[in-house]
Amino acid sequence: MFIQRLAILGVGLIGGSLARALKRAQVCAEVIGCGRQLDNLQEALRLGVIDHYTTDIAEAVRDADVVVVAVPLGQMASVFSSIRPALAPHAIITDVGSAKASVVEEAYQHLGEHLGRFVPAHPIAGTEKSGVAASFASLFENRRVILTPLAETDPQATALVTQLWQHTGAEVVNMSVEHHDEVLAATSHLPHVLAYSLVDTLAQMEDRREIFRFAAGGFRDFTRIASSDPKMWHDICLANRSAILHVLAQFNADLAELADAIEHGDSAHILSIFSRAKMARDKFSG
Amino acid sequence: MFIQRLAILGVGLIGGSLARALKRAQVCAEVIGCGRQLDNLQEALRLGVIDHYTTDIAEAVRDADVVVVAVPLGQMASVFSSIRPALAPHAIITDVGSAKASVVEEAYQHLGEHLGRFVPAHPIAGTEKSGVAASFASLFENRRVILTPLAETDPQATALVTQLWQHTGAEVVNMSVEHHDEVLAATSHLPHVLAYSLVDTLAQMEDRREIFRFAAGGFRDFTRIASSDPKMWHDICLANRSAILHVLAQFNADLAELADAIEHGDSAHILSIFSRAKMARDKFSG
Repeated sequence: MFIQRLAILGVGLIGGSLARALKRAQVCAEVIGCGRQLDNLQEALRLGVIDHYTTDIAEAVRDADVVVVAVPLGQMASVFSSIRPALAPHAIITDVGSAKASVVEEAYQHLGEHLGRFVPAHPIAGTEKSGVAASFASLFENRRVILTPLAETDPQATALVTQLWQHTGAEVVNMSVEHHDEVLAATSHLPHVLAYSLVDTLAQMEDRREIFRFAAGGFRDFTRIASSDPKMWHDICLANRSAILHVLAQFNADLAELADAIEHGDSAHILSIFSRAKMARDKFSG
Repeated sequence: MFIQRLAILGVGLIGGSLARALKRAQVCAEVIGCGRQLDNLQEALRLGVIDHYTTDIAEAVRDADVVVVAVPLGQMASVFSSIRPALAPHAIITDVGSAKASVVEEAYQHLGEHLGRFVPAHPIAGTEKSGVAASFASLFENRRVILTPLAETDPQATALVTQLWQHTGAEVVNMSVEHHDEVLAATSHLPHVLAYSLVDTLAQMEDRREIFRFAAGGFRDFTRIASSDPKMWHDICLANRSAILHVLAQFNADLAELADAIEHGDSAHILSIFSRAKMARDKFSG
């Protein structure tokens, strides 16, 4: 695989790390970055993450062989409609959105004749940080990238996007849009919602009681994801709201059961929940 | 400060780390360990954490100048009544329990004439691991230890326990039993309840859907505390149940409000919650 011209729309943590990884693997002749924040693009250029930049999205994708849309979910639709008239007929388009049903729906609405070369993708990697300064070439090593190709997607486009991600050191897995959104709601989106909500509850108790002063390492780990970009997670919550609300309802029912067991001193019940959870968590880390 | 004979009842992560830290600081002539699991005591001796051991609790505390009760909360009452007849008249007793009201109530019931030399304490430190093999001398460095002395507590006993913890590198803070239990319910006990409950919810979805296979670093950090000892956390949940249920109710109300905002696409509301939480969390880590 060799890509002559790669356009990264949105040179943040994910877009920047992908550009770095592909440069390291020497599979791109030229990487052009595009975004709305000039200072971020200048930093990307200075860091050697990209070779050129432009804030003109049509210019960015013109003559690009591969276009990676790495913007927040809330900007996908407008990016798709902006690039449509400027895309080369052979250009392969992919994205990195954390929810897939919403992106796919917007692709159907706005990509028109390019839809068959659109490969929806989601790298399961990230940190709580944002921006190109936080990007690094090894972010995707040994991580999973989920592709959710459509019935209309050209298998050659899927094959190329698969190879592209494999060059970053990631393992590529295909699944349906629905399965993706359900799994990610459970393992990523709900935990973020819970972490944000807990920290906000505690912040409201904070003033009088110096709550955070007495928090330890467990709390630090548990709430790390509440330092993630609020706008990005707002977009994810709205884009995948039905799957998130569904798993949240299950969680709430289970939590109510646990609270009831604590209230009534039902030791066997509490122990069985904690033991099952520990077993699952230990297995996951092992 | 110099302690001739220190007895550690329960040589686990906390008891073992305290013994290591005090030996490193050279403030104890002799450390005797006591517990119910012979293999753990043998390992503690082999690791040099203790100088002797016994499974006879009366023998362990006889002639001890300081007795540290580092057993799970569910065993405090029986340990207090077992040691009472064997304690030296000058012996200072302290504990490391994660909830204080229940321990204090049991001390009133069972320590009798020794109550004035009992200093309730809680080091805010730990990991998700258990047992003496997981102990290390630097566990308490730059961490906080909360003392909740009683009206009856001899100020000299409090001063000695303060010094003892300062020798581990910890910062010692005094507060009321009620304030301790409220703060810990918020920053430690509730997060553990949420992490256990979430992992259990997901484990029940797991079979068909390979949920955990697609979990990433954020999930790993968020759920690390669900690998903690189930029995220990069962004891904490029951010992501090009213404070935990109180903060859980607040959390549930706030979470319901957030879920409602997500369901109705109330962007401003979602963003304000996420932004407030991020600000609080960033401040906490900084």
